[in-house]
Order: sequence, then structure tokens, then C-alpha cells
Amino acid sequence: MKTKEYKLIERYMLDCMSDSAHDKDHIYRVLYTALNIAEYEKDVDHNVLIAACLLHDIGRQEQFDNPQLCHATVGAIKAHDFLMKNGFDIDFANKVASCIRAHRFRSENPPIQIEEKILFDSDKIDATGTIGIARTIFYKGQVNEPLYSLNENGYVTDGTDDLTPSFFQEYKFKLEGLYTKFYTKRGAEIAMQRQYSAKAFYESMLKETRETYQLGKALVNNWID
Amino acid sequence: MKTKEYKLIERYMLDCMSDSAHDKDHIYRVLYTALNIAEYEKDVDHNVLIAACLLHDIGRQEQFDNPQLCHATVGAIKAHDFLMKNGFDIDFANKVASCIRAHRFRSENPPIQIEEKILFDSDKIDATGTIGIARTIFYKGQVNEPLYSLNENGYVTDGTDDLTPSFFQEYKFKLEGLYTKFYTKRGAEIAMQRQYSAKAFYESMLKETRETYQLGKALVNNWID
Repeated sequence: MKTKEYKLIERYMLDCMSDSAHDKDHIYRVLYTALNIAEYEKDVDHNVLIAACLLHDIGRQEQFDNPQLCHATVGAIKAHDFLMKNGFDIDFANKVASCIRAHRFRSENPPIQIEEKILFDSDKIDATGTIGIARTIFYKGQVNEPLYSLNENGYVTDGTDDLTPSFFQEYKFKLEGLYTKFYTKRGAEIAMQRQYSAKAFYESMLKETRETYQLGKALVNNWID
Repeated sequence: MKTKEYKLIERYMLDCMSDSAHDKDHIYRVLYTALNIAEYEKDVDHNVLIAACLLHDIGRQEQFDNPQLCHATVGAIKAHDFLMKNGFDIDFANKVASCIRAHRFRSENPPIQIEEKILFDSDKIDATGTIGIARTIFYKGQVNEPLYSLNENGYVTDGTDDLTPSFFQEYKFKLEGLYTKFYTKRGAEIAMQRQYSAKAFYESMLKETRETYQLGKALVNNWID
């Protein structure tokens, strides 16, 4: 890809994400990890992959404004329009749009082409390890949802059967199970390298909070009559 | 302490924190940890300690609205007023206010009495370990500050000399050095038990992000001309 084309696509991505400044860090991590995975695959169209990585979340604001919209679908349309308007050829625009449409974790539209598989895996890798933990807690802060929930007796739950959102609930519902479902061998390998750090954090935090509540509540009862 | 008194003080704390629902989890962790520390100390006035723990952050909203105010000073005044108005004796109100005034990490007003030392240590313990990491990242999400910064070449810094706020900057500036400055032996012991988990998280996240940028930026340069 020419530097001029890269800068043009990057500029459009940054414009689309101007309301969520730090999400752009996610975009670059996804791009960098995708190029890492691509080193281990054959016949990758790097131009398609780079454009798709840069543009994969440009539909986020529309989904945020109207949760019934899917950011992958919106993003694919926006990317296609943008590329066509800026003189890229239609085959390229179609391939980029297709990657974006297939990057979301759901069954209706799974990735098929190698560039689609790489973007999907790379985006998912950013939810693994300590960076996945940090992004999840950061989001909880943004939407003001708690780190953990208490059961009816006031003790910390591990998140498994929680009906209300929290960091522990999200860990159990989404993060814990991410490590087995990758399309590329290199993607699975990177994820596996990060699994221990995420698990260790969750387990330490569960231990710290549970022990604090268990001992503490008993002691409060000792001193209140 | 009588259940009725405990409930009255707890109710006032919850009213003061109605705008920041999840901060109350911090209050209970501080209370529970303080009672744990108190088990290892002599001549602790548990009534003073319990009231001080419950009320120690009731000046937070005032400091948030006007950052020139100190939440410890405001909280001490509010707690004293509340206790006097609700029939607690003046010696009790003075002691509770004194604990709250001395709980903030700064040199002008260090804790002297054992209840002051316990509250100070317990509040600080909530910034150690994985819970300290989680609270810091959660706060970064609330104020929309990034997880890490990039240097002038676009590589991830470790936070040490950062001039702009980020999670890594806060870890280096505040969290990393917390483990040696406790007033009670039990406080130091609890903090030490948690040190490894916090350090491991920071180091894993630094490694994950640094490696991603280092390899990724080189690969981008390979594919852009």
C-alpha cells in the first residue's frame, strides 16, 4: 500500500472515532497483531488486511447511538462508500467491506477468506490477556457498572450466574472462554500466551475481594449488637 | 456499637455517596480490612473505627465539585456535625473526625492514634493488589484517560517519566511504591500478600502492549511504501 493511501484511510478512521479518542489505540493493536498473524499465513492480501483493520470499528458511533444497529454492518457500508469515493477499485472495496462485516463475534456471518479470519482473530486477541482485562474494566468505568456483585447474603459472587453486569460477570460470560475459538494457528498461539495473565488477575481479585468480605462481615457482626 | 447506630451512620454514608454508587463498595472493603487489622492491635476503640471507616469519604463529592477542597477535611467536618446532631457524645465525634482528617496520604496531618493508623492503612490497602489495579483502570474509564502513552516514536512507554495521565503513569507514580509505608504490622502484611498480583499484571500488560507495537510498527513499515 502506498503511504498516501494508508494516511488517507487512517485519517478517515481517526475522524470517525473522534468522539472516543482512546479506542484508536485498539485499532492500532488490531492492525499490528493482524500483521503478525499474516506472517504465518499464505496468500494474504496485505492491502485489504491493512485497510480492513484500520476501518473495522468505524460503525461504532452509529451502534452506540442506536443499539439496534450492528457496527460491523454499518462499518462495512461506510468503508465501501469511503473507498469508492476515493478512487480505490471496487474489488478492493468489496473485500475490505467483507472483512469488516465478518469481524463481529456471531454465527450468521463467519469469516471465510484469510483476511477475514485474520481480522476476526486479531480483534479477539485484544480481548485476551491483561489488555482484555484492562479494556473490560475501563469500559465498566465508562458506563459506571460495578467490578463485582454481591449475593443475597452480601458475599462476593464469582460472576458465573450473575444477572447484573459487572467485571466478574463479563469475565465469566465472555473473557474466560475466548481462548479456544481462533481461525488461525498464530492467533490461537498469541491468545494462549496471554491466557495465564488474565486468569491470574481474575483469580487474585476474586480471592482478595472474597476474603475481605468473608472475614470482614464476620468481624462487623462481632462488634455490632 | 448498637445496630441502630451502625444503621444510622451507614444510611448517612449511603446518602452522601448517592451520586457515585460503586464507591460504596470501597467503603465496605475499607471497613472490613480495618477490622481485620484491628484484631492484631491493642486498645482499639472499635466504635470510633467503624464510624470513621463508614464516613471517611463523605467529603468526596465536595472535592469533586471543587478540587481545591480536601475531602478529608470536608468529611471530618461533615461527620462531626452529623454525629453531634444525632446524639453521639463530643469525645466520640472528635475522635471520628480526627481519623477522617488524617486518612489522606499527605504529610501535614499524619495519623497518630491507633484508630487513625488503622483507617489510613486500610484505605491504602484498597489501592494495593488487583483491586488497586482494577480501581485505577475503572477510574481511567470514568475520566476517559488512556491506559498507556506512546513516546515520540510511537512506542509504548512504561509510565515512569510520563507527563500525561494514563494507567501506566499512575501505576509508576503511585501504585508501585505503596507497599513499604504502612503504620500497622498487619496492614503491611496484607499489602505484601497483594504486591505480587499487581506487579504481575502491570508487567504482563507492559509486555503485551510493547511487543504488539514493536513488532507491528516494523511490519507496517514493510507493507507501506
